[in-house]
Amino acid sequence: MTDSPTSYQELESRFARHAKLGEVIELLHWDMAVMMPDGGASSRAAQLAALKLMSHDMMTDPALGDFFAVAESDSSLDEWQQANLREMRHAWLRANAVEKRLVEALSDAELRCEMHWREARAAADFAAVRPALEEVLSLTRERAGQLAAVLGLDAYDALLDGYEPGGRAAEIDVIFEDLAEFLPGFVDGALARQATRPDPLPLPGPFDLDTQRALCRRLMRAVGFDFNHGRLDESHHPFCGGVPEDIRLTTRYEAGNFMSGIMGVLHETGHALYDQGLPARWRHQPVGEARGMSLHESQSLMIEMQACRSREFITFAAPLMKESFKGSGPAWTPENIHAHYIQVARSMIRVDADEVTYPAHVILRYRLERALVGGDMKLSDLPAAWNDGMKELLHIVPADDAEGCLQDLHWYAGSWGYFPTYTLGAMTAAQLFQAARKAVPEIPAALERGDFRPLLGWLRTHVHGLGSKLTARELLTQATGRPLDPRAFEAHLTERYLA
Amino acid sequence: MTDSPTSYQELESRFARHAKLGEVIELLHWDMAVMMPDGGASSRAAQLAALKLMSHDMMTDPALGDFFAVAESDSSLDEWQQANLREMRHAWLRANAVEKRLVEALSDAELRCEMHWREARAAADFAAVRPALEEVLSLTRERAGQLAAVLGLDAYDALLDGYEPGGRAAEIDVIFEDLAEFLPGFVDGALARQATRPDPLPLPGPFDLDTQRALCRRLMRAVGFDFNHGRLDESHHPFCGGVPEDIRLTTRYEAGNFMSGIMGVLHETGHALYDQGLPARWRHQPVGEARGMSLHESQSLMIEMQACRSREFITFAAPLMKESFKGSGPAWTPENIHAHYIQVARSMIRVDADEVTYPAHVILRYRLERALVGGDMKLSDLPAAWNDGMKELLHIVPADDAEGCLQDLHWYAGSWGYFPTYTLGAMTAAQLFQAARKAVPEIPAALERGDFRPLLGWLRTHVHGLGSKLTARELLTQATGRPLDPRAFEAHLTERYLA
Repeated sequence: MTDSPTSYQELESRFARHAKLGEVIELLHWDMAVMMPDGGASSRAAQLAALKLMSHDMMTDPALGDFFAVAESDSSLDEWQQANLREMRHAWLRANAVEKRLVEALSDAELRCEMHWREARAAADFAAVRPALEEVLSLTRERAGQLAAVLGLDAYDALLDGYEPGGRAAEIDVIFEDLAEFLPGFVDGALARQATRPDPLPLPGPFDLDTQRALCRRLMRAVGFDFNHGRLDESHHPFCGGVPEDIRLTTRYEAGNFMSGIMGVLHETGHALYDQGLPARWRHQPVGEARGMSLHESQSLMIEMQACRSREFITFAAPLMKESFKGSGPAWTPENIHAHYIQVARSMIRVDADEVTYPAHVILRYRLERALVGGDMKLSDLPAAWNDGMKELLHIVPADDAEGCLQDLHWYAGSWGYFPTYTLGAMTAAQLFQAARKAVPEIPAALERGDFRPLLGWLRTHVHGLGSKLTARELLTQATGRPLDPRAFEAHLTERYLA
Repeated sequence: MTDSPTSYQELESRFARHAKLGEVIELLHWDMAVMMPDGGASSRAAQLAALKLMSHDMMTDPALGDFFAVAESDSSLDEWQQANLREMRHAWLRANAVEKRLVEALSDAELRCEMHWREARAAADFAAVRPALEEVLSLTRERAGQLAAVLGLDAYDALLDGYEPGGRAAEIDVIFEDLAEFLPGFVDGALARQATRPDPLPLPGPFDLDTQRALCRRLMRAVGFDFNHGRLDESHHPFCGGVPEDIRLTTRYEAGNFMSGIMGVLHETGHALYDQGLPARWRHQPVGEARGMSLHESQSLMIEMQACRSREFITFAAPLMKESFKGSGPAWTPENIHAHYIQVARSMIRVDADEVTYPAHVILRYRLERALVGGDMKLSDLPAAWNDGMKELLHIVPADDAEGCLQDLHWYAGSWGYFPTYTLGAMTAAQLFQAARKAVPEIPAALERGDFRPLLGWLRTHVHGLGSKLTARELLTQATGRPLDPRAFEAHLTERYLA
């Protein structure tokens, strides 16, 4: 006979089941984006709704409260188990903090608003979606209030905490204000510097799509992606899903431009490497999951921005590109291809922005969403405030709301508090890469040979393998000697764009 | 305010949730067969185990008993609701009849036995798998006993009923004995007739796989498959999965032979049309599901054997084949291609058998599995009994057990009571096709134009749209004027192979 399980063990078993259900939900989404014919939408929605209800029921089972009460006085738990208990409790508190009728009302409102948004963006007509967005924002503020009461946070932090556990606006404010002071002058400087050089020679297509696919696979393998444990497919919006043993990456190819497709794939590969390196011992447990969105984004940007847009990696990759597409002439030199990959331009659209101007887009959205969630701004003032912010941060003004406050889905689909993680991720990547190169000096030379093992080894130990054992702040402090600040990011930009 | 749900409504809601979970399990299996990299196997197994446990827990919730007790005296239910209640009760009884520890032990034993079987078949060594099969059989007999006690059936019928609800061995015996008398002489006759004709001219490959894929899609569309509601992919073993709004067919192509690939696809398309035609009003309810395996197989064989191997359809399809593969010469005439499609040969392997000899393979397995489940035969006697049966029914004797009792996975994986549904399906197809042609005389002429609408219209009304409202026997009686008998099948064979 085996002993009956302890309360902690009972929690592990329930959270494992919950995690597996979550994996299945994610696979259904992957299939929907990559494989499902359009006519399957209604039945897929019904399947997803049923699974999400089951998932919600598991997490709101009243029995869990008793298990937590007992487990928290269990003195036999080791460090990892204690961290796991903390993460389980956090997930449980969040799941139970918000009334079910509010969860359902918000889900409906988000779906409605997303539909209106598609039309409004096409028509560049913010007023057409404002009532629907008003409803989403109002319900989001109500949700934030319920979360805040349970978590002891203010409303914005309670939303941020859903993407970035432990993240606090007060800390982000300091970092972003530093960056907001640095950036406008830096952009001027980088553009002035760029103007002293000739434009990169063009690489006009078309580029055969199957050749692009094969080249992406070859580069993914170099970076360390294991195709026995994952796939690369195509979808309208690239993403990285799946589970550590079976990662599902997607991308999108353009016949006229192979370069952005490759970087898109390498970006998603960075996400994949994080998931593949999570601690196997803690699979299906909250402590075994990735730490949060800023650290996840740091891993994609580590690969894309820090490693793969480096002169070293392009020295390795450019000859493969040339060979794949049977290119010839000076446009195919590593120097010219690298010049393409580090072009800077002020532009209206966040997803098209380069790494220098990208943070300005994020800081703008962060400021605006804080004001909207905090009730310090009305939605009717959003378009003008957006344009003012663009003028201040990037010295450009959108011609209409389609290239202004209608461009991103996030708010319309209910993702408030997400935006700052992009730039926190970029800064985290720079700070980690700086520490990695200091600890493992051969990293740049290895990248020049297409060998990511020295970098990946360091990441496995200092980031991936830790799962959610530490907070993001603790992890970064342990790995780099200090909590997040913008210095490494600013130094990285300076080295790449002004040196 | 809405009224609180009745017990019947409560059952509908629980069975709908259970059905959606079942659909998700099926999609995970599709993904596993078609998309998943090998390295994803362990995590997929964990996901499936978790979902199956949830599914089992739903169906064994003690609250269901009370709902059934009340619902069964609910006099407000209409005909469809009553049938749905009957089907729900049947599923519930079966799910609760077998002890959980036995379900788990059997599942383990089946997995183990399947592994041993793969090696034993490769080595043509029945003795190597006999102990594992002994365990599966012993547990299967125990399971059959528990099912039989609850359902009031004998042990074999209790297993059969899992694939063919309402099916009874006593009725199958009569039909199969008739066929077993008819077949040996008929095979002799068909082979003698065939010997009077020259062999079909060979169609040697290779045939481009993409061309095969495109041709299969074109023929699927002609038959009535809607690619807005389904996909065609490739897997090692072809199958038809998915849901009515999103059917997932798979097939396998061979460069050296396009003809078998096409018929494989058309066979699976027949399964798909049944699912796509099920009553939408009863989606996610047991009464809205397909009636059973023999009726399901009848729909695949209706398309493959009755319609698509007819001279009429080949008259339509042969020019498309010729055009697709840029064929020329007398080998590409409809007559020659049709001759290929109706070749008869005595052979050892069921899955390669033609429609004339196929029933002999099934009758053999049916007799043997009845004796084994009934305890009238020992497993050690199986190889010899198999060979004796082949000699009696087909006048050939396997050289070893690999082409004898090791050839099919079914028993080793625990599927006892399944085999008869193949030939019941073939006979059902013939009887339904006879009735359809009588009711809609333009069917053959339409097939000659590649127009399946007259046939499909009749099937939608008399088979697909009825879901599980009637028993298979009632459905066939209503559609054809009589319960299943072998006459239409024997007439079909006579017309095609002796006329």
